[in-house]
Amino acid sequence: MQELPGIGKRYDFDLGGSTDRVSVVTRRDGVRDLYVFTAKSDEPVAVIELTEEQARKVGAVLAGTFFD
Amino acid sequence: MQELPGIGKRYDFDLGGSTDRVSVVTRRDGVRDLYVFTAKSDEPVAVIELTEEQARKVGAVLAGTFFD
Repeated sequence: MQELPGIGKRYDFDLGGSTDRVSVVTRRDGVRDLYVFTAKSDEPVAVIELTEEQARKVGAVLAGTFFD
Repeated sequence: MQELPGIGKRYDFDLGGSTDRVSVVTRRDGVRDLYVFTAKSDEPVAVIELTEEQARKVGAVLAGTFFD
């Protein structure tokens, strides 16, 4: 985890592929930014902004703590 | 949520922008596939495969249930 002074925190996750990577920035106001990297590049292939509510739902499904 | 017979379940999340969308496929073996859409297209801009363990960590950070 990396502190982003004045913004929040950043969490980096290296995934299965040699280049797949996900970063989540949790902003102090609750907004989360999801960065997806799939190539050997500093540029993300996708950047998604989620409200706290949206992030909670997506996170629950990913984490497996949501069942229906 | 949509059942994917023989595979698992799919959860779709419409996000802030008019076209931003995230889909999570939770496979019966625990693997999660994260699809990110940012354009008016049926093609995702990114597809990420996460093990159950990886998905749990990313999900916890997104959901805000992970603190350090």
